[in-house]
Amino acid sequence: MSDLDRVLALIDADLDNALDRLFETLRIKSISTDPAFAADVRACAEWHARDLASIGFQADVRDTPGHPIVVGHMRDGTGTSALFYGHYDVQPADPLELWESDAFEPVIQTASDGTRQIRARGAADDKGQLMTFVEACRAWMAVTGRLPIPVTVLLEGEEETGGVNLPPFLEAHADELRADIGLICDTNMWDPQTPAITTMLRGMVTEEFTIHGPDRDLHSGFYGNAAVNPNQVLANVIASLRDAEGRVTLPGFYDGVTELPSVLRTDWEKLGFDADAFLGEIGLSVPAGELGRSVLEQVWSRPTCEINGMGGGYQGAGFKTVIPAMASAKISFRLVFDQDPHAVRSAFREFVQARVPADCRVEFTAFGAARACAFDTGAPEFRKTRAALTTEWGREAAFIGSGGSIPVNLDLQEKLGMDVINAGFGLSDDRIHSPNEKYNLTSFHKGMRSWARILAALAE
Amino acid sequence: MSDLDRVLALIDADLDNALDRLFETLRIKSISTDPAFAADVRACAEWHARDLASIGFQADVRDTPGHPIVVGHMRDGTGTSALFYGHYDVQPADPLELWESDAFEPVIQTASDGTRQIRARGAADDKGQLMTFVEACRAWMAVTGRLPIPVTVLLEGEEETGGVNLPPFLEAHADELRADIGLICDTNMWDPQTPAITTMLRGMVTEEFTIHGPDRDLHSGFYGNAAVNPNQVLANVIASLRDAEGRVTLPGFYDGVTELPSVLRTDWEKLGFDADAFLGEIGLSVPAGELGRSVLEQVWSRPTCEINGMGGGYQGAGFKTVIPAMASAKISFRLVFDQDPHAVRSAFREFVQARVPADCRVEFTAFGAARACAFDTGAPEFRKTRAALTTEWGREAAFIGSGGSIPVNLDLQEKLGMDVINAGFGLSDDRIHSPNEKYNLTSFHKGMRSWARILAALAE
Repeated sequence: MSDLDRVLALIDADLDNALDRLFETLRIKSISTDPAFAADVRACAEWHARDLASIGFQADVRDTPGHPIVVGHMRDGTGTSALFYGHYDVQPADPLELWESDAFEPVIQTASDGTRQIRARGAADDKGQLMTFVEACRAWMAVTGRLPIPVTVLLEGEEETGGVNLPPFLEAHADELRADIGLICDTNMWDPQTPAITTMLRGMVTEEFTIHGPDRDLHSGFYGNAAVNPNQVLANVIASLRDAEGRVTLPGFYDGVTELPSVLRTDWEKLGFDADAFLGEIGLSVPAGELGRSVLEQVWSRPTCEINGMGGGYQGAGFKTVIPAMASAKISFRLVFDQDPHAVRSAFREFVQARVPADCRVEFTAFGAARACAFDTGAPEFRKTRAALTTEWGREAAFIGSGGSIPVNLDLQEKLGMDVINAGFGLSDDRIHSPNEKYNLTSFHKGMRSWARILAALAE
Repeated sequence: MSDLDRVLALIDADLDNALDRLFETLRIKSISTDPAFAADVRACAEWHARDLASIGFQADVRDTPGHPIVVGHMRDGTGTSALFYGHYDVQPADPLELWESDAFEPVIQTASDGTRQIRARGAADDKGQLMTFVEACRAWMAVTGRLPIPVTVLLEGEEETGGVNLPPFLEAHADELRADIGLICDTNMWDPQTPAITTMLRGMVTEEFTIHGPDRDLHSGFYGNAAVNPNQVLANVIASLRDAEGRVTLPGFYDGVTELPSVLRTDWEKLGFDADAFLGEIGLSVPAGELGRSVLEQVWSRPTCEINGMGGGYQGAGFKTVIPAMASAKISFRLVFDQDPHAVRSAFREFVQARVPADCRVEFTAFGAARACAFDTGAPEFRKTRAALTTEWGREAAFIGSGGSIPVNLDLQEKLGMDVINAGFGLSDDRIHSPNEKYNLTSFHKGMRSWARILAALAE
């Protein structure tokens, strides 16, 4: 029996204990976007540092101007070195009333199709995923007393809020953190049977803007028509952001957006993506993006403009005939290829300013900004990882794109000169960022086994 | 010394006690639109019934399917009989943080220009106003033991929520409530020196609509572009409701809207309305309604379409990259002349339905609906009331229009066959429906004196 076989056997035998450990971190309300949960976020960082230390990592919690970062080293051994990245923070759980059980009291449920699932905020994004890697390391240490390759683990606490403190941290600790390859477990499989490495990720610009009109809320009977209504101005701006064919209308928005390379287009066509099923699973049937683009292009290789939140005036029960003093929206642009996030933000701000009446004022708040990124799938680490995944799952691992943004990919690429392998075990129905987020027990179990194999493969 | 002179002297001497009584009702949180305050609304009705009974009215609290109605009779005496209408319910006080003092703990403040003001939710709309009439009755009773004319007082608790239970109540009690003339104190003066009778009031249709898209909140990275975003659909609908010239685009919306009669146009021009000052006082400078219409037309004799509230997606602190399952808005249309509220509601619903993608669903909730109304200012009661107001204020009372809707006017006209005199002492800077609502102490004091004079005048 090889070391790897014994590691895999231990992972199988220790599954219940691994779940207990996962549930401990899932119970911590590490909601990074809401200042009210700052202490919980720190408590979660401390839990992970203790957990890594218990395996044998030299681990500690590093302060940043925002939420802390956990760093753990275990650099004995030789060969390809790896920096594993994960994030221990989570999205808010609201609307709470739509959860079938407490968002922060994880449970194992059996779905109608018989799959067993871990339900909790963060089960998939990203605590469940990052723990697949940590548990693989734990098993290797338990069986052999060492890891197959030198490993550093870096866990961020601000991924869900734009992560502005990570890039300077990477720069300040570049020599400490740099490795031959980056590893991230924060992406999806192609489907429940087919593992995948995500090689292309969209970037993102996020912005909040507020239209200020009258200097106070007004009675719409006395002032209606004559006084500008910020709700109307906000709606006018939002409506003008897309044309009738679904294209974003910001001047210069498509600068840097190229057509999909033909080799990738061929790969993607082979995937046999079922657009009707993809939309049908969320209760929809009509693709809402640019006319003439496939749904896979719309979500992987075309840029977006989405209003993630908006509000103004009276939203309570009943009716209030008010013209509000202000209205605001949160907007995000997903970027592809060479779109420049700063140029997009500037174009957006000019676009809004040009559409606001002279007696209104606009206030802008910048959140995150990151370019899109892609990796060279010809490198040997990609080949080895693909083979390990293929062995574990019994089906060839796919190279895919992703509509989501994981800005750390770009940071590792630009600041530390590293390529990154995004191998994750999430599924499209995991409801991350939504009520009843879940992570399949199979993803967790075979995810741990996958990383055990990948660690061995990278040592070869 | 005449009875009237003694009544006016008593009103002057008793001002502090009248304020104490007003403050008692202002402290009651009679917010009719929010079910959480239902008990407070009832408590307020009971307070007013007790107060009327203490004057000598035969008063009681009548149940309705919604909030109760207070009715008080004092029908001794002869001559022109009057039905006085007021409403004891108030708007919500939010946003609470913008109040300089507790919305439900009335205070007397001195403004920078030296005017003394009563600050509280309901100070002007409508508790302060209705109490001017009640206190005038109290003074007449104290001085003469009777009222100059037969009076019935009707106080509604659902004016701020559309008042659906008042019309059937009026019909069911038509014989009990019918009088020669209606009196309402829920309107404004022309300016702080010039009293006014409002002879033309806009109608209103209010509606809430919700766009349902995906069957749950989605991650905008994974689904952006492809999944319809209800925020975007809502904004598109709202933006298309007005054209570039400020006209409402609903088919048939202007059916029944006529030009202002020339006699009224001449009257209004004589008022010397200062549009710049009107807008400047609320921090604005650009009229937002139909191009080519004066501001006075825009707020008095042109119909409106205003978004009173809207919201969808994540509106908390920070950022959440979500595509929401739904987004909704509250919309009101102010109506003029012969616009049909039911036709407007139907046109609006068809308009929205036609603009919603095939895989979305719209849910509509109807709130109030009332036609506009106008009264014959040639009737003797109008002449007598105008003369009484002119005597009290030392400046000729104006016949004016109002942008606000007081649907009971139409109910009294249509169901009880009565004309209504709207004589109120509010001012355009009273901030009704807004934080820091106030009612000038002069409005309260001279308002009581005005009604004392009007009661005497109507007996002649």
